[in-house]
Amino acid sequence: MAKENVSMHVARLVSSTVLNLFFIINLCVAENRKLGLSWSKKAAADAEAVAAISCSGHGRAYLDGLVLNEKGFPVCECNSCYGGPDCSELSPACAVNAGSGDPYFLEPFWRQHAASSAVVVAGWHRMGYSYSDNTYMSQELEKRVRILHSIVGNAVTAGRYIVFGAGSTQLLNAAVNALSTDNSSMPAPVVASIPYYPVYKTQTDIFQSINYKFEGDASLWKNSTSDATVNVIEFVTSPNNPDGQPNKAVLSGPNAKAIHDHAYYWPHFSPIPTPADEDVMVFTISKLTGHAGTRFGWAIIKDKAVYDRMIQYMDLNTMGVSRDSQLRALKLLKVVIEGGGREIFDFGYKTMRDRWQKVSETLSKSKRFSLQKIAPQYCNFFHKVRESSPAYAWVKCEREEDRDCNAVLQGANINGRNGSVYSAEDRYVRLSLIRSQDDFDLLFQRLNKLV
Amino acid sequence: MAKENVSMHVARLVSSTVLNLFFIINLCVAENRKLGLSWSKKAAADAEAVAAISCSGHGRAYLDGLVLNEKGFPVCECNSCYGGPDCSELSPACAVNAGSGDPYFLEPFWRQHAASSAVVVAGWHRMGYSYSDNTYMSQELEKRVRILHSIVGNAVTAGRYIVFGAGSTQLLNAAVNALSTDNSSMPAPVVASIPYYPVYKTQTDIFQSINYKFEGDASLWKNSTSDATVNVIEFVTSPNNPDGQPNKAVLSGPNAKAIHDHAYYWPHFSPIPTPADEDVMVFTISKLTGHAGTRFGWAIIKDKAVYDRMIQYMDLNTMGVSRDSQLRALKLLKVVIEGGGREIFDFGYKTMRDRWQKVSETLSKSKRFSLQKIAPQYCNFFHKVRESSPAYAWVKCEREEDRDCNAVLQGANINGRNGSVYSAEDRYVRLSLIRSQDDFDLLFQRLNKLV
Repeated sequence: MAKENVSMHVARLVSSTVLNLFFIINLCVAENRKLGLSWSKKAAADAEAVAAISCSGHGRAYLDGLVLNEKGFPVCECNSCYGGPDCSELSPACAVNAGSGDPYFLEPFWRQHAASSAVVVAGWHRMGYSYSDNTYMSQELEKRVRILHSIVGNAVTAGRYIVFGAGSTQLLNAAVNALSTDNSSMPAPVVASIPYYPVYKTQTDIFQSINYKFEGDASLWKNSTSDATVNVIEFVTSPNNPDGQPNKAVLSGPNAKAIHDHAYYWPHFSPIPTPADEDVMVFTISKLTGHAGTRFGWAIIKDKAVYDRMIQYMDLNTMGVSRDSQLRALKLLKVVIEGGGREIFDFGYKTMRDRWQKVSETLSKSKRFSLQKIAPQYCNFFHKVRESSPAYAWVKCEREEDRDCNAVLQGANINGRNGSVYSAEDRYVRLSLIRSQDDFDLLFQRLNKLV
Repeated sequence: MAKENVSMHVARLVSSTVLNLFFIINLCVAENRKLGLSWSKKAAADAEAVAAISCSGHGRAYLDGLVLNEKGFPVCECNSCYGGPDCSELSPACAVNAGSGDPYFLEPFWRQHAASSAVVVAGWHRMGYSYSDNTYMSQELEKRVRILHSIVGNAVTAGRYIVFGAGSTQLLNAAVNALSTDNSSMPAPVVASIPYYPVYKTQTDIFQSINYKFEGDASLWKNSTSDATVNVIEFVTSPNNPDGQPNKAVLSGPNAKAIHDHAYYWPHFSPIPTPADEDVMVFTISKLTGHAGTRFGWAIIKDKAVYDRMIQYMDLNTMGVSRDSQLRALKLLKVVIEGGGREIFDFGYKTMRDRWQKVSETLSKSKRFSLQKIAPQYCNFFHKVRESSPAYAWVKCEREEDRDCNAVLQGANINGRNGSVYSAEDRYVRLSLIRSQDDFDLLFQRLNKLV
């Protein structure tokens, strides 16, 4: 009896452990089967290994970064003033980069949304030129662009055409080209209100077109548009780069053709009082999601003939936008749209507002410097009256002798951009507030020392 | 004693199963830890799920394909003449697409190299404008481009500058722009030898430049270059599109500036007798790896001043090439370079040679049609004398009355491209041989019926 009992115990024990083994192995297999990962495993592991490289929170390693060490891993790329193999060394005397508009302020957002924003590109993804509708533009992406604008309320897209470009950059000249006319008696003047984004001039100049010519300050052309036979093309940047003002076109009349550059018309930077509804509007993910490097933008166009000319320009210039950029933009916009856009715009707005408040308070302590003022407006996205939280501080040196304001700031180890870059006086400097938190913290620290 | 034995057995059994459990669980955990997958899992699973959608071998689904069904999966995109939800339905009367140059012939190669060619893009990958050296071009990618040319032996890169572009397309005008001069007495004529790729004309025309003007047939300018003060810019396509000939520049002299378009100068299509060493050479991955949609090409430049002008053009046109395209091109070139390039060029050459032989044999049965002849040459890549295996069949209708050769072929349900598209007579038709195997098989079948 005792022996039988023992045998039964043993039998139970064996069967229970066998069952346990069975379930555990099953769990393991099921986990892998659920993921269904085979060919993508290696690439995923590579990407995660690079993402795990420690750059001390002051930099990041990229899959395509320089490989200098013997292990074959890419090196850390550090925020400005940080160095060393793991970006842990701060150079105290180094000049902070407040010049370029790299939108790293959104990098932490994407790190927080790593799983939803990653993209796996198969080796055979979209090898051909065309999507299934024989265009160079992803319909799924165009859908998301329209949804995005309806959520944010910053642009009317119903009944409008959409053209994709390599960032807004490529679309600027596509629009100039489309709005100028062939075989006209003189080149169409291309103008903008001072201070303006310098690419309007440098880009228009490089194409040396018979049909258009950059002519500078828009206000000088106010009386030339009513009876002219030639179109005058005006770049209207709203909010404006560099000063964040909600600019309107200064020219009017049948021959005044405006290109509205709305790169910064997102809740990060600006109240959204009303959906923009101009004839030619240009947007970009660069200042929306922060992916300047992806080179993806779009134009919203009312007129079919202008749209046709822009599409033709895009086809002949680059055969459309990289299908890889379009795939990535699709994934990013899906994340933006999730939850009605609240997450990214809350993050972006809070970050930018915080930075703006800090810079404003600091500079208000000094009579040597002044800062642009932007009137508060009701924001239909956040449902409240909002102060601006502009992308750039447009700083003026008030002392008579401080004619070169950037030199004054450089004396305090701050590298901004001269006012003359924006066709304004060098008494002004643009300071970029959209860079990494490290860059902003250093900028803030040095501004505090200066005032 | 018996009882003690039993106890010992039980103890052994328990400890052995516990150990087993321990090892199995460890294996499971280690497998996942080895892969180290966390945030990339979802994207990897999504990509593999889409790749697993069955399109009957006559199509493929893409991650960014149209989503029409309620399950949220993208639809199959079928090869021409195939249809239905899973591409299983062949429309017997449908016209085969032998027109466009989508390089799907390499799609099976990338499916076979799925693991090594996949790329995982993190949400925060390269958000800024610049690489760590403050340029818009990936140094790691430039390294691979140089290694590739030294392996293939098709171009000299030592001591040369490299410029990236959105496909070769964007680089063509960048080169025209760089080779023309500002403020010259007349626009530089831009010319090419008939038959030529139509984009040379349409692209040059759309920019309506003061500095250059498309003037058609190169041979008409033979006597105009020796004493002219204005540069004459000649597009030299070698091997030529559409006819596969190893073209040379027809113009010479100090004012003759050639842009050598070597899009097809790869072992897939052509023997490689010697490394090309011209002043301005343009290449693209479109006809190398087959990734036309990625829009990535490069120019190899001898002269620093020309290089500087091209870089400036790229910066102002699109602020460089999409960093996502560059990441993808890097991964693809790594696969190409592995094993000295033998795998992809063996695959590509065998595929193209097979197609060319079939088309040649079929058309040789008929006196109604003739095909271009290309002289065999010694190939330094394959170390033997090689026949050509051109990307396109350049078919001539020999009968007096067959002035519209494409119409003759359309009568047999074959859609090629009219000779006049290439500024030749419509007695010629270009048939694309670089499309999918389905497209080629249908083309071959219909050619056989026709002759």
